[in-house]
Amino acid sequence: MARIFQRAFGLKSILGYAKVSSTSRLAPSDSPCILATNHFHLSRKSTRHLTTENAEKSKSLPPERFPFSRVTEEDLDYFRSILPGRTITDPDLLESNNVDWLKSVRGSSEVLLRPQTTAEVSQILRYCNGRNLAVNPQGGNTGLVGGSVPVYDEIILSTALMNNVLSFDHVSGIVTCQAGCVLESLSLYLEDRDYIMPLDLGAKGSCHIGGNVATNAGGLRLLRYGSLRGTVLGLEAVLADGRVLDCLSTLRKDNTGYDLKQLFIGSEGTLGVITAVSVLCPRKPKSVNVVFLGCETFEQLLKTFQLCRGMLGEILSAFEFLDSECMRLLNTHLKLSNPISDCPFYIVIETAGSDQNHDSEKLHHFLEEAMNTSLVTDGTVATEESKIKALWSMRERVTEALTHDGFTYKYDISLPVEQIYQLVLDMRQHLGPGARSVVGYGHVGDGNLHLNVTSPAKSPALLASIEPFVFEWAAARRGSISAEHGLGLKKRNYIGYSKPPQAVALMGDIKHMLDPKGILNPYKTLPDHLSSGPPRAS
Amino acid sequence: MARIFQRAFGLKSILGYAKVSSTSRLAPSDSPCILATNHFHLSRKSTRHLTTENAEKSKSLPPERFPFSRVTEEDLDYFRSILPGRTITDPDLLESNNVDWLKSVRGSSEVLLRPQTTAEVSQILRYCNGRNLAVNPQGGNTGLVGGSVPVYDEIILSTALMNNVLSFDHVSGIVTCQAGCVLESLSLYLEDRDYIMPLDLGAKGSCHIGGNVATNAGGLRLLRYGSLRGTVLGLEAVLADGRVLDCLSTLRKDNTGYDLKQLFIGSEGTLGVITAVSVLCPRKPKSVNVVFLGCETFEQLLKTFQLCRGMLGEILSAFEFLDSECMRLLNTHLKLSNPISDCPFYIVIETAGSDQNHDSEKLHHFLEEAMNTSLVTDGTVATEESKIKALWSMRERVTEALTHDGFTYKYDISLPVEQIYQLVLDMRQHLGPGARSVVGYGHVGDGNLHLNVTSPAKSPALLASIEPFVFEWAAARRGSISAEHGLGLKKRNYIGYSKPPQAVALMGDIKHMLDPKGILNPYKTLPDHLSSGPPRAS
Repeated sequence: MARIFQRAFGLKSILGYAKVSSTSRLAPSDSPCILATNHFHLSRKSTRHLTTENAEKSKSLPPERFPFSRVTEEDLDYFRSILPGRTITDPDLLESNNVDWLKSVRGSSEVLLRPQTTAEVSQILRYCNGRNLAVNPQGGNTGLVGGSVPVYDEIILSTALMNNVLSFDHVSGIVTCQAGCVLESLSLYLEDRDYIMPLDLGAKGSCHIGGNVATNAGGLRLLRYGSLRGTVLGLEAVLADGRVLDCLSTLRKDNTGYDLKQLFIGSEGTLGVITAVSVLCPRKPKSVNVVFLGCETFEQLLKTFQLCRGMLGEILSAFEFLDSECMRLLNTHLKLSNPISDCPFYIVIETAGSDQNHDSEKLHHFLEEAMNTSLVTDGTVATEESKIKALWSMRERVTEALTHDGFTYKYDISLPVEQIYQLVLDMRQHLGPGARSVVGYGHVGDGNLHLNVTSPAKSPALLASIEPFVFEWAAARRGSISAEHGLGLKKRNYIGYSKPPQAVALMGDIKHMLDPKGILNPYKTLPDHLSSGPPRAS
Repeated sequence: MARIFQRAFGLKSILGYAKVSSTSRLAPSDSPCILATNHFHLSRKSTRHLTTENAEKSKSLPPERFPFSRVTEEDLDYFRSILPGRTITDPDLLESNNVDWLKSVRGSSEVLLRPQTTAEVSQILRYCNGRNLAVNPQGGNTGLVGGSVPVYDEIILSTALMNNVLSFDHVSGIVTCQAGCVLESLSLYLEDRDYIMPLDLGAKGSCHIGGNVATNAGGLRLLRYGSLRGTVLGLEAVLADGRVLDCLSTLRKDNTGYDLKQLFIGSEGTLGVITAVSVLCPRKPKSVNVVFLGCETFEQLLKTFQLCRGMLGEILSAFEFLDSECMRLLNTHLKLSNPISDCPFYIVIETAGSDQNHDSEKLHHFLEEAMNTSLVTDGTVATEESKIKALWSMRERVTEALTHDGFTYKYDISLPVEQIYQLVLDMRQHLGPGARSVVGYGHVGDGNLHLNVTSPAKSPALLASIEPFVFEWAAARRGSISAEHGLGLKKRNYIGYSKPPQAVALMGDIKHMLDPKGILNPYKTLPDHLSSGPPRAS
């Protein structure tokens, strides 16, 4: 089974950009189709060949396999002794754990371990570290940068069976749970108790909270509730050598020493395996409204954002945008009709509050002001669920519309908010007629732009025009080349576009301090010159 | 001058607990009078004597001076060459920098450096690291745990002249500034632009934003806007060896590698000197209300908090409490009369929102519900500024009232919110008639209790009854022995009550990685067994 899959995707993927179908699992919103820029599919044999053949793509290719040990029968006997029935070696069962959600990266792991407790994770890592065995920690495997699957034969350590809620504090709204809890399950658990999770993602049906924390997931509620760095109150992690680091506090305030949990938030499983977290949860809003607006210029859109923050203030929960090119694609490919008159820019605003009357009134005052001052030229408001969904779909289905427009090159950039749309304009001018469509949409509230370029077919020439132009453009403005998806395998060597050499070097020091043999999620996050496995046997 | 001061405070302070007057600078709210528990005043000569004489206090005493070099004339020449006119050696001018705000800790530094730029800080540290000279980074020197002053002759590196706002983004509300900006100045700067700082402290008139970030200051707005770990978007720090770490991003989302800035937030200047920060600021609220309520039991108070979070939701900005013992002290010592009828517990709730009518209506609905369900027995609401201030003073002046009740032992504990008052009850029972008053007040919303015990005079016997009882009590419930004040010099050896040995050991590894010679703020934050200076000269 594994072989067949590899053959079927092999050459075609290596040479270019195959369209993949991925309907079997929930799609993250704004999936970046990383295939377009960093796409590859490798067997161990092909690495070297590719690296020579196509130097410009080599930065996203993995380095040669580090000199880790290979799993022996003796190792398997040990794993079976501590994880009876949960040490998986059947290639068919391992298939979905070896391939990422985008089907763009494939490992060849032959062992999947499914611990249920922190103590088991500790035993596994202590053993692997002693034996120089590499480990790929895996949550829901919904990552978009190849960080959640093995690159070669790393042992997959899945958190899937670590899915218990450990406690919930009704007064403070703090939930403590194992790392393998699925985000949607946690959300439902909390909604029953009149709370919500502070984060929401398109992949919520599959992703694990441990993976969310390990990748510092952003998502739709960041504008309102902030990042996981503020809402994760406690964390338990197992270090490479099996040491358990219990920072599973449920305190809002604790200034006793360095805040070690922050090291593990967003480090993509390279510094430790997160086994449990505690999260501060907001109360469930009693009222939700959505409004769809049109603006003549991006400057007016920014002024509308400013007005909105002032007048909606505490009830603002999302401020998203799309440009007229996105609308054209929605019309053309999905037959979605514009709910308002044609404009160069469209805004989706969501409010969430505790009083429907108050929220509506605030919204209407804001709209009145925005219209009177000609910041917006047209708009419509939705309060009932079906209309809310219809308006949201104008933003959420842009990704789908793009897939019908041709081959899509996708970028996920964050920038100082005033500058985010300039990248789209500059890219249009830069590419000229070489591109079919150049569109921009994204999270204005977070300064996060989704830049998309389509082409009738995949085009190495077009790609060469886009990259490194886009990275250099973002770097020149101190933007981030990965706003919320992390670096994983695919972007690890581009870190220098967003972080200075001193910072990258220090990251290497931290990795070396916590995982000197490099067994945890090797080939990920850090650039190749800072990565290594255990010392080669002499 | 320095000598006289030392003599005047010397013996009296060493043997017991001298009352200090500190009217010349703004008092932080709930100043913990650390004098009561960890108080000492040392000259270099007395250290050894004290350590022997009073073993039970030894954990807060500094270790012997580490083998750092002493400042020479040649060193001074170098400093004068890079900081002309800003290399201070006049003992009178150094006086206020050598003594902490509580006048409980006094160093004997003979050099104060006042750099204006990051480059100057870098030059200073590179030089000091090469010369094995210890450095005490200092902001507004409002810290309460002896972290902001030298212990021996460390060079004081003040951020006072690094007080420029570098940029402000009107659209996103992100301010970027040098570390020495005074919090209140920043607040005023922002209020002029319709924004506020996400933190507010009693010490705002003196404290520097760099110091706030270095100590992860909590304060009054944490319930609403979260901790600095979420609102600080970027940070620039200079490492012990002079390397400048530029993580001064103004992005809300940036997942490119490890988030290094978190290392410096809350590490009290022991890992690097923060030279600039960027902070995400909320819009200035248009409406503020305060309500003062009475409850029969602490359980009802917690239920009121829950109801309040649900009904006030997005406009809730503070939920504070005091017990009837606090009210008695306010009545007795400050002649403040209870604005409502007598109750065992009192609550101060503040709302901040964008619409006065809506906020009042929400408040009244909440109050109606709280009264109808008998959660609260009496209450009063204030919307105009003078009455708001009067109600707030019932909470804010408890500290002052306590000073009139006798000698006060103060603790600043955070706990899971359901348990915070049990500590007061248990302490009362534990101490019996040995204490004059045992009172509790604090930030319910943050699970942060201020436990205070008064006595007619200082009493080593009473202290021995309180400690380590209070620390053990908090530790048994996974509480924090320092909710917001940090560890500094005074609490460094108590870290084990709130953090497991594995975590503390890892903190030591981080310190050693970033500052191998231990020149940055020595004797602070980490317990003595993990602290050291440069290798002793052979």
